[in-house]
Amino acid sequence: MDIIEIEQVITGGRFAEAKQLLELSYALDTFYFLMTGALVMWMAAGFSMLEAGLVRAKNTAEILTKNIALYAIASVMFMLVGYDIMYPDEAVNSVWPGISFLLGADNTVEEVVSSQGETYYSKMADFFFQVVFVATAMSIVSGAIAERMKLWAFLVFAVVMTGFIYPLQGYWKWGGGFLDELGFLDFAGSGVVHLCGATAAFCGVLLLGARKGKYGPKGEIYPIPGANLPLATLGTFILWLGWFGFNGGSELKISDIGEANAVAMVFVNTNTAAAGGVIAALISARVIFGKADLTMALNGALAGLVAITAEPLTPTPLLATIIGMIGGVLVVLSIITLDKLKLDDPVGAISVHGVIGIWGLIAVVFSNPDASFKAQLIGIATIFGFVFVASIITWFIIKAVMGIRVSEEDEYAGVDYSECGMEAYPEFVGSAGSGK
Amino acid sequence: MDIIEIEQVITGGRFAEAKQLLELSYALDTFYFLMTGALVMWMAAGFSMLEAGLVRAKNTAEILTKNIALYAIASVMFMLVGYDIMYPDEAVNSVWPGISFLLGADNTVEEVVSSQGETYYSKMADFFFQVVFVATAMSIVSGAIAERMKLWAFLVFAVVMTGFIYPLQGYWKWGGGFLDELGFLDFAGSGVVHLCGATAAFCGVLLLGARKGKYGPKGEIYPIPGANLPLATLGTFILWLGWFGFNGGSELKISDIGEANAVAMVFVNTNTAAAGGVIAALISARVIFGKADLTMALNGALAGLVAITAEPLTPTPLLATIIGMIGGVLVVLSIITLDKLKLDDPVGAISVHGVIGIWGLIAVVFSNPDASFKAQLIGIATIFGFVFVASIITWFIIKAVMGIRVSEEDEYAGVDYSECGMEAYPEFVGSAGSGK
Amino acid sequence: MDIIEIEQVITGGRFAEAKQLLELSYALDTFYFLMTGALVMWMAAGFSMLEAGLVRAKNTAEILTKNIALYAIASVMFMLVGYDIMYPDEAVNSVWPGISFLLGADNTVEEVVSSQGETYYSKMADFFFQVVFVATAMSIVSGAIAERMKLWAFLVFAVVMTGFIYPLQGYWKWGGGFLDELGFLDFAGSGVVHLCGATAAFCGVLLLGARKGKYGPKGEIYPIPGANLPLATLGTFILWLGWFGFNGGSELKISDIGEANAVAMVFVNTNTAAAGGVIAALISARVIFGKADLTMALNGALAGLVAITAEPLTPTPLLATIIGMIGGVLVVLSIITLDKLKLDDPVGAISVHGVIGIWGLIAVVFSNPDASFKAQLIGIATIFGFVFVASIITWFIIKAVMGIRVSEEDEYAGVDYSECGMEAYPEFVGSAGSGK
Repeated sequence: MDIIEIEQVITGGRFAEAKQLLELSYALDTFYFLMTGALVMWMAAGFSMLEAGLVRAKNTAEILTKNIALYAIASVMFMLVGYDIMYPDEAVNSVWPGISFLLGADNTVEEVVSSQGETYYSKMADFFFQVVFVATAMSIVSGAIAERMKLWAFLVFAVVMTGFIYPLQGYWKWGGGFLDELGFLDFAGSGVVHLCGATAAFCGVLLLGARKGKYGPKGEIYPIPGANLPLATLGTFILWLGWFGFNGGSELKISDIGEANAVAMVFVNTNTAAAGGVIAALISARVIFGKADLTMALNGALAGLVAITAEPLTPTPLLATIIGMIGGVLVVLSIITLDKLKLDDPVGAISVHGVIGIWGLIAVVFSNPDASFKAQLIGIATIFGFVFVASIITWFIIKAVMGIRVSEEDEYAGVDYSECGMEAYPEFVGSAGSGK
Repeated sequence: MDIIEIEQVITGGRFAEAKQLLELSYALDTFYFLMTGALVMWMAAGFSMLEAGLVRAKNTAEILTKNIALYAIASVMFMLVGYDIMYPDEAVNSVWPGISFLLGADNTVEEVVSSQGETYYSKMADFFFQVVFVATAMSIVSGAIAERMKLWAFLVFAVVMTGFIYPLQGYWKWGGGFLDELGFLDFAGSGVVHLCGATAAFCGVLLLGARKGKYGPKGEIYPIPGANLPLATLGTFILWLGWFGFNGGSELKISDIGEANAVAMVFVNTNTAAAGGVIAALISARVIFGKADLTMALNGALAGLVAITAEPLTPTPLLATIIGMIGGVLVVLSIITLDKLKLDDPVGAISVHGVIGIWGLIAVVFSNPDASFKAQLIGIATIFGFVFVASIITWFIIKAVMGIRVSEEDEYAGVDYSECGMEAYPEFVGSAGSGK
Repeated sequence: MDIIEIEQVITGGRFAEAKQLLELSYALDTFYFLMTGALVMWMAAGFSMLEAGLVRAKNTAEILTKNIALYAIASVMFMLVGYDIMYPDEAVNSVWPGISFLLGADNTVEEVVSSQGETYYSKMADFFFQVVFVATAMSIVSGAIAERMKLWAFLVFAVVMTGFIYPLQGYWKWGGGFLDELGFLDFAGSGVVHLCGATAAFCGVLLLGARKGKYGPKGEIYPIPGANLPLATLGTFILWLGWFGFNGGSELKISDIGEANAVAMVFVNTNTAAAGGVIAALISARVIFGKADLTMALNGALAGLVAITAEPLTPTPLLATIIGMIGGVLVVLSIITLDKLKLDDPVGAISVHGVIGIWGLIAVVFSNPDASFKAQLIGIATIFGFVFVASIITWFIIKAVMGIRVSEEDEYAGVDYSECGMEAYPEFVGSAGSGK
């Protein structure tokens, strides 16, 4: 070889290897998105089992139907409009996204190479990861309104929520809108996902009122125990597992040392915050009720997870544990308080996802130097305010058009029969039992 | 350095880096196979829960035993003979595979390097991915013949099916046999796995006859509701999750930009087809029965998944949704029709995997320009015809040797007691309830 | 370019690419740890479901509470002290670890690059993988002592076990202590995890005594069937899936051809050993009891998994199947024998994890030429001896301070009410049923 040839070899060779590195890196990041996305999809099963375990037997088939249907609706609506609203190719401004509709093709090799690392994973993998998040937000609603809402009214709300309400407020933060510009921080969605879902649930509960028999005429509170606590526990473990995808995937990249360390830190903090939540909730329940209340332990796990979701990267594992523990205490107090306020939420969704979602957003300031208390408050107020107004209008319209609450007879007999025409456990519950 | 040294550095250096790239690429593809394979293995739990939820309490322990045992048998038989039949090192011809028996060692570093990218993942990982597919095919059978077939007769069939019947027809397509040469397209197995399993199930149902009490003497059809719909729903979610491995892993490679995009597209289409199936089946059930039938929603999800399995890569997500939706409508109609024909399939397996498997194979022609309607029909006819003949002969021999149907008393009392000597829910069901 | 420039380009370029390769490799290994760790975490749900399915309805909420609480305690205690004991930065000697307390920061890019491949994955990912192992060991205990132990006494034991007992014996092998120096081989923890957990469980059972009504005054053995076998089956499938992470992740690296092949081999052997265990246990049960006992099939699967855990890499798949099969036979015999000895273990944990753990450790010598029978025996004796003494002392102290067994009335009424203040299935079990 002479020098000219050597130059060609070096340039050509380096280009080939650099390109292969880029391709491999792209493949790893895409695979990471798909696997973490699959874990988030699995959370749909978690919510289904949690809610099915916490309602009465006579309302179980219906809550299952709501859960699988809402996941399906979220998947289709987010594909048709939501994704474009939340991540518009060209936004009108930071409040109002442009809508370009329908998914484009995926990145070509040329685009990836010429982007020099800017474009580092498949668009479709991104869509997959995002679409399962929407379903999570919607799943929060189904639990709170359980045992008394009409199935089809709920599904209509799911269409509006997953196609429009969620994506718009999501755009404001994750799509680069004004909340993002303001410096509001929400790593994996204590606000964008959990507070959003809980706020919509809150509106539904306000309009629906409590289940018959939950509160007595003189203000008595009657507990309505869930029919199947192993299912509820399974649901909680599923959610815990899925949350590694939820938070872990939200780092959005894993293919270098810094990013890999970050994803690992997020996994550790997610786990330990949930653990802290369990311990704190269990001790709180022991102190308050005198018993090791299983449902509070489950809510404690979920509270720990929601609390760390706004910032699972910057806390040390010890701080993450404490953030989770505070979540675990708060969720027990919140559930008791909401019950006293006669806000009937059969699964505690408003407390777990709403109250603790707010706590998580505030807790960001304890570990992330980029966070400002003010920006966090503005974010909380914006998400709550917008979702509240949008949801209450939507619920009102649905109520006016088709009604939202089942008849008293259907509620007494169980919505499984009236809405789904079947029983969830036809052999296990006596005729007396199913109506109790 | 002089020019000679520089040449050596370039050549040596480039070889070292190219080799490392090859190794890393091999590791990523192997890891992708193992993770997607683990997801497919998880489908065994999905079928178990689905079937356990859809049978009566008194037959639940037995169907669980069948499911875990068939998975074990599939794992061992495919290792001993099946894998070699399906992927022979040296085939006799495109109809008849050679049988070399027993797994060889894995690829050496030298083989991988000298193959220049042809050999790009572990043989053992390939075996792992394939072995869990066999179990899926066999799982389809157990649901259809539930509540009346002898356990050991079923397990004997499982030996033949997973060791011989499945691998031979699998060889014709995926092993490079004559169906592959004909241009028959079946990406992840709407035919090779689902139609194959459903055909064997169909033969079993034909020979077994209906469950006692399912059809009245004057042609009445009595519904026999499943005992535990939360379990059935859990099973469906498990299958949905597992299907990301089933279809996503069937791309067989992820380590460059094009392949990563392809896998991501498969994930998106798999999800959206299932979602379309749920929505269409739920609406169909609402129209036909007047209720939001949960079991039809579950069957709709599975129908969407089976429908997209033959070609999850080339459709747009919108087309995938439509393919899933058509699957969702067809499965409801098929279940009603089979019931009218007195083909008693307790879980709808023949409709979900057989009828929709055929629909999926036909739907390939709508998006893949390489597909021909004729080749798809030949493939369908071949798989159905061969598996039908092979299965019916096998079932007949088993029937002659050991019988296939339990006694009327055992069927009335529940096969849990006669086959497994135990009850699945000993505390929950009264003596009256378990026999109903 | 002149030669000097070319030299610079080559050196600089190669360094950049070598560094990128190192980073990508680090990212893949870290991701592999996190995904396999997530699978191991999922085993916590498996144990919960298995145990909840195998106890009576009246003790179900309590066993679920124990399971989620022990996982939380293990996560926090191992973070606070356990990890440092097991993997000390500077050990005092090979018997006594140093304790440096609290997690350090993760590896910097510079440390990784300068280590030349020695440091190849995130410390946090390592911690995550290890922490879920501790929970597994502790989960084994909860099943054996079910239906009669005080909840808070159990949780205190969990603190000591996960913070001190497990990590110290873990240090002796995996932290590089004297068992490792002796040549004791235990790939993924048949001894360090399973025998350790089973030994602690054994001590608990010894001190607690049998459940009321399990053994008659004349030595009669009364079976106490589990309330929910679909749950137990689900738990077994979850454990089977999780075990791919447990064993597969224990290879500790996947990023080159040799390591990727090794991980794939581990997956295959793990699967086939479990399959062998199912088949052998099912046939054993058929021979001994005359029925296809589902719970024995489940125990057979777990026995196969425990048996292969000490060495899932060096056996051929055929040998792995045989090792699993022997495990499946032994577990049936062991369960029968322990019952005759009036060691009341409601879920068979001592047999599955202890007896078969020992079998697994012995079986290493059949395939791994580096193994010595003597070293394996010393390892078994050390783990059993140390954990026995440490556990029995701990249990004694807890017994003296707060008592370990619930009152006879509470045991009769079910610990769900006395410990958790709730029922797991409030609508399904009559007042007679729950007390039976």
